[in-house]
Amino acid sequence: MSIAVIYGGNRPNGNVETLTKLATQGLIVEEIYLKDTIIQPIIDMRHAEEGFSEVNDDYNAIIERILPHDILIFATPIYWYSMTGMMKNFIDRWSQTLRDPNYPDFKAMMSSKKSYVIAVGGDQPYMKGLPMIQQFQHIFDFMGITFEGYILGEGNKPGDIVQDSKALSAAECLRRELQ
Amino acid sequence: MSIAVIYGGNRPNGNVETLTKLATQGLIVEEIYLKDTIIQPIIDMRHAEEGFSEVNDDYNAIIERILPHDILIFATPIYWYSMTGMMKNFIDRWSQTLRDPNYPDFKAMMSSKKSYVIAVGGDQPYMKGLPMIQQFQHIFDFMGITFEGYILGEGNKPGDIVQDSKALSAAECLRRELQ
Amino acid sequence: MSIAVIYGGNRPNGNVETLTKLATQGLIVEEIYLKDTIIQPIIDMRHAEEGFSEVNDDYNAIIERILPHDILIFATPIYWYSMTGMMKNFIDRWSQTLRDPNYPDFKAMMSSKKSYVIAVGGDQPYMKGLPMIQQFQHIFDFMGITFEGYILGEGNKPGDIVQDSKALSAAECLRRELQ
Amino acid sequence: MSIAVIYGGNRPNGNVETLTKLATQGLIVEEIYLKDTIIQPIIDMRHAEEGFSEVNDDYNAIIERILPHDILIFATPIYWYSMTGMMKNFIDRWSQTLRDPNYPDFKAMMSSKKSYVIAVGGDQPYMKGLPMIQQFQHIFDFMGITFEGYILGEGNKPGDIVQDSKALSAAECLRRELQ
Repeated sequence: MSIAVIYGGNRPNGNVETLTKLATQGLIVEEIYLKDTIIQPIIDMRHAEEGFSEVNDDYNAIIERILPHDILIFATPIYWYSMTGMMKNFIDRWSQTLRDPNYPDFKAMMSSKKSYVIAVGGDQPYMKGLPMIQQFQHIFDFMGITFEGYILGEGNKPGDIVQDSKALSAAECLRRELQ
Repeated sequence: MSIAVIYGGNRPNGNVETLTKLATQGLIVEEIYLKDTIIQPIIDMRHAEEGFSEVNDDYNAIIERILPHDILIFATPIYWYSMTGMMKNFIDRWSQTLRDPNYPDFKAMMSSKKSYVIAVGGDQPYMKGLPMIQQFQHIFDFMGITFEGYILGEGNKPGDIVQDSKALSAAECLRRELQ
Repeated sequence: MSIAVIYGGNRPNGNVETLTKLATQGLIVEEIYLKDTIIQPIIDMRHAEEGFSEVNDDYNAIIERILPHDILIFATPIYWYSMTGMMKNFIDRWSQTLRDPNYPDFKAMMSSKKSYVIAVGGDQPYMKGLPMIQQFQHIFDFMGITFEGYILGEGNKPGDIVQDSKALSAAECLRRELQ
Repeated sequence: MSIAVIYGGNRPNGNVETLTKLATQGLIVEEIYLKDTIIQPIIDMRHAEEGFSEVNDDYNAIIERILPHDILIFATPIYWYSMTGMMKNFIDRWSQTLRDPNYPDFKAMMSSKKSYVIAVGGDQPYMKGLPMIQQFQHIFDFMGITFEGYILGEGNKPGDIVQDSKALSAAECLRRELQ
């Protein structure tokens, strides 16, 4: 089982990263930091005659990096009660890839994957992060991805997460699951 | 009562726009199309000593345009069960404005506003759009904005929305409410 | 298309009843008032050797009344952010019927039905009623019932609902749909 | 800190009970089994001139048992994606107690409490149990009760829960928290 982590935050060594590294400690992981890439918002051409235009950014390269892996971990700070806009733009673009002749098997390949969400927020994430979890559930259901589980952690300032013993222990459990 | 609409989609004359124009017909409305602007993802410097850097994009100009209005309508196609990444990036940046000395009253000014969400999606929006509505509720609660109501409509191809009589009639109701 | 309404409240001429009668005006409707029946809470014997015991109450008679119909309307006041305990006890008992040799086709028969939820509450039902709608969605999904739509209305005192123009207009739409 | 557990299931030694006992091991706990009591559904007389009638059942005795405690644990199997009808009937009756002259301080007393939810279900409880958690959140918010946390576990047949290492470890965490 090989693992890719998609990081949606932009803070180096942020709380989500700490938690995710704990959950994947000792495992080989392909780490993708969206903050180091440029991803354009989707231009919705699903129903335009000419179809989608090729976009000159880092999006396809990221797709190439995640496709070989069995497990995808979406690791995002909770901004305004959902994933970051950066991660949302990444997922929005899937609509283009679903129609991209260069990726005829995109949905089939994605549907064989398992996924996890790891998210940390400062405002009652155990409650107010639930709509985000439900959004991810719908996203994964649409793609046929199996949603294996999620960890919600509480933290604001960098380092806060080490105080959240519940999240730390969930990360430990996940690590055993991933081995 | 003056109204600003923030459009999150990028399709000209899309279903959300049709529905929103019906709901605001005959009213003076400040229309903001995010697709015609550039908004950078937030660089989270909330806890960095140096604080946030000024960003050279269209974000502040949009804030200037919405602040004078009493009512904000967030009009977005439902992409992957939430608002578009473009609209999410716009909202993510509020975290910066909340700490921006140029906008010392940002939260107070926002908290006096009323808001509506109008959203159209192709995959059971009446059900699968609900986590997005709950997310908006948390967003508005945080800012102290009164969430007055929402309309969910069903549509995929441009023009589909005129078949959704429930959404059209909700738009009519909203129009009477806004007058 | 024949219709059964299951009323979960106990107030005669309550707000939900008013709204539901508006939505079904002029149509022949089998009306079931749970308040006039006795339904025991389920005794969960799914995994007991002896299985479920027959229960001497009105539950099976209600099942007999709803099974012949194509459309089920669950009409309930929102008590504590969900359906009434009375209606919940009714649905809980489905677990018994699913294993009742007298109803070998229960799931198949239910799965051919369409359903609606009409619910009225006093505390921001348009927002705080959404988890209940999601719960109904899971219930109907499990049974294979098609969830055609829902109306949330606001009201506290009897008669309040006539002030909720949005709900009234949604009831009008539903009436056209049901004809 | 003294603890009362309210059990909503009716199976002796069910999965929820196992999980809850693990979370409260070594602590003095007031255990309330709703299955051993009779609780009538509420007759909603909030707006009737004559008000509520006294009900001759076990409800008030349960209220007397929970009021002295600082922490309430709602322990329920997930039936049809929410608490059992029995537990719902118990909570529905709070509306009566809120107007009961014998309990003039009911809301104030409840609002000083902390609460937890422990729930076990057989159909993807980590996802499909979330609307129930949101319902509890609204319930506790209304009463002013602090919602300290929840554990969702997976299980169907009695004993299944011991396979859910994530839930077991969450119960361990909770036990340390409660000490």
